[in-house]
Amino acid sequence: MNHDVVDTLISPEGRLEILSKAEVAKLLDTSQGGLYQIFRNCALAVLNCGSSIDDGKELLERYSSFDIKIIQRERGIKLDIRGAPAIAFVDGKMIKGIHEHLFAVLRDIVYVNFEVVDNPKFDLARPEGITDAVFHILRNANVLQPQRNPNLVVCWGGHSISRGEYNYSKEVGYQLGLRELDICTGCGPGAMKGPMKGATIGHAKQRLGGGRYLGISEPGIIAAESPNPIVNDLVIMPDIEKRLEAFVRTGHGIVVFPGGAGTAEEILYILGILLHPENAEMPFPLVFTGPASARAYFEQIDGFIGATLGEEAQRRYKIIIDDPEEVAREMQAGIRQVREYRKSRSDAYYYNWLLKIDHEFQRPFRPTHENMRNLSLHKNQEKHLLAANLRRAFSGVVAGNVKEEGIRAIEKHGQFEIDGEPEIMAPMDALLTSFVEQSRMKLPGKAYVPCYRIVS
Amino acid sequence: MNHDVVDTLISPEGRLEILSKAEVAKLLDTSQGGLYQIFRNCALAVLNCGSSIDDGKELLERYSSFDIKIIQRERGIKLDIRGAPAIAFVDGKMIKGIHEHLFAVLRDIVYVNFEVVDNPKFDLARPEGITDAVFHILRNANVLQPQRNPNLVVCWGGHSISRGEYNYSKEVGYQLGLRELDICTGCGPGAMKGPMKGATIGHAKQRLGGGRYLGISEPGIIAAESPNPIVNDLVIMPDIEKRLEAFVRTGHGIVVFPGGAGTAEEILYILGILLHPENAEMPFPLVFTGPASARAYFEQIDGFIGATLGEEAQRRYKIIIDDPEEVAREMQAGIRQVREYRKSRSDAYYYNWLLKIDHEFQRPFRPTHENMRNLSLHKNQEKHLLAANLRRAFSGVVAGNVKEEGIRAIEKHGQFEIDGEPEIMAPMDALLTSFVEQSRMKLPGKAYVPCYRIVS
Amino acid sequence: MNHDVVDTLISPEGRLEILSKAEVAKLLDTSQGGLYQIFRNCALAVLNCGSSIDDGKELLERYSSFDIKIIQRERGIKLDIRGAPAIAFVDGKMIKGIHEHLFAVLRDIVYVNFEVVDNPKFDLARPEGITDAVFHILRNANVLQPQRNPNLVVCWGGHSISRGEYNYSKEVGYQLGLRELDICTGCGPGAMKGPMKGATIGHAKQRLGGGRYLGISEPGIIAAESPNPIVNDLVIMPDIEKRLEAFVRTGHGIVVFPGGAGTAEEILYILGILLHPENAEMPFPLVFTGPASARAYFEQIDGFIGATLGEEAQRRYKIIIDDPEEVAREMQAGIRQVREYRKSRSDAYYYNWLLKIDHEFQRPFRPTHENMRNLSLHKNQEKHLLAANLRRAFSGVVAGNVKEEGIRAIEKHGQFEIDGEPEIMAPMDALLTSFVEQSRMKLPGKAYVPCYRIVS
Amino acid sequence: MNHDVVDTLISPEGRLEILSKAEVAKLLDTSQGGLYQIFRNCALAVLNCGSSIDDGKELLERYSSFDIKIIQRERGIKLDIRGAPAIAFVDGKMIKGIHEHLFAVLRDIVYVNFEVVDNPKFDLARPEGITDAVFHILRNANVLQPQRNPNLVVCWGGHSISRGEYNYSKEVGYQLGLRELDICTGCGPGAMKGPMKGATIGHAKQRLGGGRYLGISEPGIIAAESPNPIVNDLVIMPDIEKRLEAFVRTGHGIVVFPGGAGTAEEILYILGILLHPENAEMPFPLVFTGPASARAYFEQIDGFIGATLGEEAQRRYKIIIDDPEEVAREMQAGIRQVREYRKSRSDAYYYNWLLKIDHEFQRPFRPTHENMRNLSLHKNQEKHLLAANLRRAFSGVVAGNVKEEGIRAIEKHGQFEIDGEPEIMAPMDALLTSFVEQSRMKLPGKAYVPCYRIVS
Repeated sequence: MNHDVVDTLISPEGRLEILSKAEVAKLLDTSQGGLYQIFRNCALAVLNCGSSIDDGKELLERYSSFDIKIIQRERGIKLDIRGAPAIAFVDGKMIKGIHEHLFAVLRDIVYVNFEVVDNPKFDLARPEGITDAVFHILRNANVLQPQRNPNLVVCWGGHSISRGEYNYSKEVGYQLGLRELDICTGCGPGAMKGPMKGATIGHAKQRLGGGRYLGISEPGIIAAESPNPIVNDLVIMPDIEKRLEAFVRTGHGIVVFPGGAGTAEEILYILGILLHPENAEMPFPLVFTGPASARAYFEQIDGFIGATLGEEAQRRYKIIIDDPEEVAREMQAGIRQVREYRKSRSDAYYYNWLLKIDHEFQRPFRPTHENMRNLSLHKNQEKHLLAANLRRAFSGVVAGNVKEEGIRAIEKHGQFEIDGEPEIMAPMDALLTSFVEQSRMKLPGKAYVPCYRIVS
Repeated sequence: MNHDVVDTLISPEGRLEILSKAEVAKLLDTSQGGLYQIFRNCALAVLNCGSSIDDGKELLERYSSFDIKIIQRERGIKLDIRGAPAIAFVDGKMIKGIHEHLFAVLRDIVYVNFEVVDNPKFDLARPEGITDAVFHILRNANVLQPQRNPNLVVCWGGHSISRGEYNYSKEVGYQLGLRELDICTGCGPGAMKGPMKGATIGHAKQRLGGGRYLGISEPGIIAAESPNPIVNDLVIMPDIEKRLEAFVRTGHGIVVFPGGAGTAEEILYILGILLHPENAEMPFPLVFTGPASARAYFEQIDGFIGATLGEEAQRRYKIIIDDPEEVAREMQAGIRQVREYRKSRSDAYYYNWLLKIDHEFQRPFRPTHENMRNLSLHKNQEKHLLAANLRRAFSGVVAGNVKEEGIRAIEKHGQFEIDGEPEIMAPMDALLTSFVEQSRMKLPGKAYVPCYRIVS
Repeated sequence: MNHDVVDTLISPEGRLEILSKAEVAKLLDTSQGGLYQIFRNCALAVLNCGSSIDDGKELLERYSSFDIKIIQRERGIKLDIRGAPAIAFVDGKMIKGIHEHLFAVLRDIVYVNFEVVDNPKFDLARPEGITDAVFHILRNANVLQPQRNPNLVVCWGGHSISRGEYNYSKEVGYQLGLRELDICTGCGPGAMKGPMKGATIGHAKQRLGGGRYLGISEPGIIAAESPNPIVNDLVIMPDIEKRLEAFVRTGHGIVVFPGGAGTAEEILYILGILLHPENAEMPFPLVFTGPASARAYFEQIDGFIGATLGEEAQRRYKIIIDDPEEVAREMQAGIRQVREYRKSRSDAYYYNWLLKIDHEFQRPFRPTHENMRNLSLHKNQEKHLLAANLRRAFSGVVAGNVKEEGIRAIEKHGQFEIDGEPEIMAPMDALLTSFVEQSRMKLPGKAYVPCYRIVS
Repeated sequence: MNHDVVDTLISPEGRLEILSKAEVAKLLDTSQGGLYQIFRNCALAVLNCGSSIDDGKELLERYSSFDIKIIQRERGIKLDIRGAPAIAFVDGKMIKGIHEHLFAVLRDIVYVNFEVVDNPKFDLARPEGITDAVFHILRNANVLQPQRNPNLVVCWGGHSISRGEYNYSKEVGYQLGLRELDICTGCGPGAMKGPMKGATIGHAKQRLGGGRYLGISEPGIIAAESPNPIVNDLVIMPDIEKRLEAFVRTGHGIVVFPGGAGTAEEILYILGILLHPENAEMPFPLVFTGPASARAYFEQIDGFIGATLGEEAQRRYKIIIDDPEEVAREMQAGIRQVREYRKSRSDAYYYNWLLKIDHEFQRPFRPTHENMRNLSLHKNQEKHLLAANLRRAFSGVVAGNVKEEGIRAIEKHGQFEIDGEPEIMAPMDALLTSFVEQSRMKLPGKAYVPCYRIVS
């Protein structure tokens, strides 16, 4: 591993940023209310791409001297960067993709903090207000492109997967790319990188110069899942819930590869939404897939969903084992239905306004020990609300595994306690245990110490 | 004249607009607080381009059935337009340039009303807040382009000029275009159209595909000076003062052709700013020019400036008669100095942050009969403040001539009365009288009835 | 007039030229068989654009020290130019359009002399061989663009026309440009420049970045009709007949403005072809147009055609006076028919293979005194053959007026003598006389001395 | 393996082809002198890309019903294709890259046969004439791009390599791509595909939209090494020798991966040229590389070169084992020297005119049994001539392995006999034997029957 550091001065290129004097001042403000910390941490995560740290805390400690300053010049701003991880550079020159990502980070932090937070236009206490804020952040990031036909496939799955699963995700990406489908992931390695690499080759063979590799991250996760430079549209949402909403409102279908707690969180999120009665008619292609070796894994997941959310939820997805072409054809067919549906309702192709997302899925969940213990994990509630609570449970496990704040909380207060009905806790325990056994919780090479305890 | 009307449905093209549900709702709101009226009126002005109405009231009356609606479709919004002036169409198809302008109008009205007005970020009571708002509106309109070298020449002058003066302005534009300079005007016919047409030919000969023809307008004037479709960057500022600030902060030099009251307003505005002590060192190329027939006109202007603002003001401009090449070379040389100056101070090429604009030049002036009578037109004040007040006097005359609100006020209360020191009133009277005699107040073919009275 | 000269070194830009060592050697060869003379003369003509010489001999004498050399560099060739007319430069820098034209000249001279002449593939003794050569020269010049719909309007007319006629041709070009039609002319001033300038403005308003202004010239005429820099596709055909064939095989319709002998030559050429029985069914929009002042002129032309070629020929064109919009609509409608016709026959949109051109119209005509006297100008032949001979007569007059070789022949041997049947000679004499009276033979400001004598 | 076939009708896209009537006729001519056979066979090879046949004869037999016709339409030609291998299609639609390759094949066959063969301009009996022909074919294929800096790395190596060697070649390509170097190979699988895939990812991370993947093939080899669709510039040279000349005149450096007889042929070709006294000063970066497992292989090659061509030849290359970054840095440094060298001599960056290629390396070698037996394989000749003869020996082995004509000759007359001095024959025998043992002669899965016999 390369701990060398590099100093450099870079200008925006391709994606230019023009900042006002007030914006620059606020970004350089290192006080409590200032934006410096969040900008610095996200920038460091972007620069650390490709390294195998998936621990925000470790990253910050390793590059403690890292510093980034904005300076104003006659052609716009420049970034003065000190102590950056050498891995972001080739022979001393920053990789262009990473260069772009730094300015994407800057763009989104400026926009969220200058235009969204405190702007009376956005009533963030109401579902419509949150959906509107997500829309505006994405629009500002130029992610919403009205002239495209629906073709954006969201790929979810673990950042810590085996070589065989990784190669399989590349092959799926290749088949999607050959069919002129674009890829959206949460950034990071593993199942989030494989489909993009595969699609790059597929797009090259189809001469698609404008293939999109959209990465959607948020400040809490970006250190653990730093965006691969292939990502050519990066957007940093302000929190997990807005990130998840961004996935389901911009994507036209979802492919889920094997993963760990984060993947389970995502599966519960999308199923919880699709189970909402108002979404009953809405087409939404959802495929779980992996190589032959992942068959048992998906049977476990499927069993867990059957046991907790029931058959109705199981009808919402299709499991395809070891057949990348079939996955691609399934997504293509599903997206064709999405297109018909939106067209018939004049709903935007680029933003799924019609999807009903319950406020429970939008409200940020802070995984404190108290909140984790008090989750309502019982069957005596509507299915989509149970899904919301299960989602929170897995979200807390992710935080305890890889997010700086979560790691520090576990260090201080010990494991999270997760409590609930035995009919739910038993399958959950089994699922989490299998994730640990299959090394799906952290990048390989480290012994995993669970951050949770099932206490039903 | 063609009073025929056309109905059509258009989509954004080239410049796409993606609106949120809340934005669409507010634009369609015809109530007092809604944006429908202002959007409709600006849209009508844009569609009426090329016609010879320069009277906002007349325009609205002639096309009283005109209607424009925003509708949401799967690829973004569309505009449903009824009763549009046929002049905007060629064989039933809207001219692309006008098509783009409609979406530029929409973009700016949305931005100003959703992001600027009521946003606590902009303190519009302070000079910095206004300058910041101007910056954000221009940035949102994609007018600020950091990678360009300074090359934007603002052309001011009358919308009602003779054929000879018009041809001269084309020739100047051609010579500017051959030197790869871009053009910015206030939109409209006459001296605002000629330089763009000339530059189009110059740019074509130099194979400059990306030549810019920037038009800066505001809702009050756009009906009288509707943007020529050659304008390929249109921005609608919220009021006269922000429009003027936009000119002087984005342009790198100014050429003034013969004109009437509006031109005098512009000259007084720029001279008032350049006379501010803090701008004493700042290079700012400023040329007054016209064909031989305009020599007397500029002598009058020069005399008026000498008599009111003195020699110091006269040193700030150069008068060049009948020599388009010399005008172009002068601007090129001046802009080279601007570049050096900004570079040495790391000030942006695309926005003149360093230019000091006194709050007096920023505060919107409402030309009521009372405000017009109470202007401080005497020499017992700093030169740049006298310039500010003289500017307001001419601004009121423009309103009374061509703006809907001003025309209605004159209809109701009679002529504006302008009062002040005789040493100022006498040359002002002479100047205005000469404008009337030279038919510089209105488009030709109409008898001019003065909207003002000098009462010193 | 500016006789100043400039030295410069230029590289291809936009249109790159990569030459082999053998090609460079042949171009620098100043011996009899070498290409240096023809390249130098065409280059000088291109550089002299915009000046008012229409006399090849005068041009060569004025810039006798002009020299152009090809030099090989690591990024391709450069041109080392000495003693070039200053008119091609703006502040010492060559106008880009002219710069491109120099490389177009180079490209075509290389291609014709390396790939066409002496290549056994082209049997230039047979009509198919000539048509094939024309095709290859145009293809090599990238003029044939298969993905475009038919939209190319050829504009013919005089280089020496009045200001009013020139403005009218601009207005026609503007209306064609607004309808997204492209322009092709023979290069040069007057009716060959106006439509391009007008179309440039029309295209700018329609945001057509790729508008085409195709100029087709040949070495004998280019000195008198140097290409305006707006021309963005220039091709130099080897002789008059191939140039005319290029016009009618690439253009989709023709507009004829007032002109002199050259225009008459062009009219006779196209009518002679359309009169061929095999072309009887082929749609080919042909409009003669001018401002009100040109009405008499076209009546004369129409009368001459009626008297010589008869009613059948008159049915092939439409005369439209003083109505640019109508001209544009007529061309648009006619070109729609051309498209249907080609589509139904799978004939290329970009090259009119189906048009029958009799060998008589393809064989180069050398206007020696002997050839001029021996023309068969009588009615006892097929109409299209009479047209071919009449065409030659006017071609000779053009040569005697403006081409270097023709001028020298007249200097040496006196006027051409044109002989024929009185029923033809009388109207021809009348027509030529009217051209002289209307100053249509040469650029204004020079007394015209006829180079011919009617001797019937 | 998929033997399914597809019928389709395709138009040029991106790379348009406009053919004259004569050209279409000659392409459709199935007689002896016509071009149909060669066009059909190359087209079939292109369509078969990705399949694992490396035997031209087998390919033709399997798709014996394959047919391709050119038809003329209003927007240019179309290709009517019957019985094409299904592998070229995704869900019934041809992969764009393959689509482009078909038109590249067409372009080059037309050019070579219409413009080069029988054109008196090219004296193919002289070295300069051959070099000129190579230049013209490449220029016509738009391969020579004068505005680029030298950055083209030729990658040679076997089509039948192990997974580990293939992955290594991808990694080298990735490191080259990150350094903005482009790739040129001979098309085909294995070491010719890996570097392009790797570079595609490297270029994507560096946002290089215009990355080049140049494939150079020839009709005899294309069936065995069909171009991967990533190749975005394909050119079909008329024979092996011109193909090799194209590699060394357009590439700026060469990387050699492990391979078999073809790779040995290429190594002997480049060393033979570099050993020519006139090339002694010319920089030409040449690296042999592979993963650790290839160390022994390159030691064998190095030993063979030492034993036959001596130390001087060994000084011309560097062997780098298992270090892709070092390979990339070495090429980058070497190409910088190439640039300096050409710049100082004004030699083109895009074509190495200065490289001396002896006529012995240019004359096509037909590997008949007689020619193979009569090769002069002894040390009593200049080193570069011995290299030329050794090159021919390996060339014959390649033909006997994978080319249709060679395979048929072996079927008929038995093995080639290769004779020579024992000091040369012994190491050659050892080398060939090791190729067989290491399965480097054919794609895996087939027993290799040698097509040669060493008879020294």
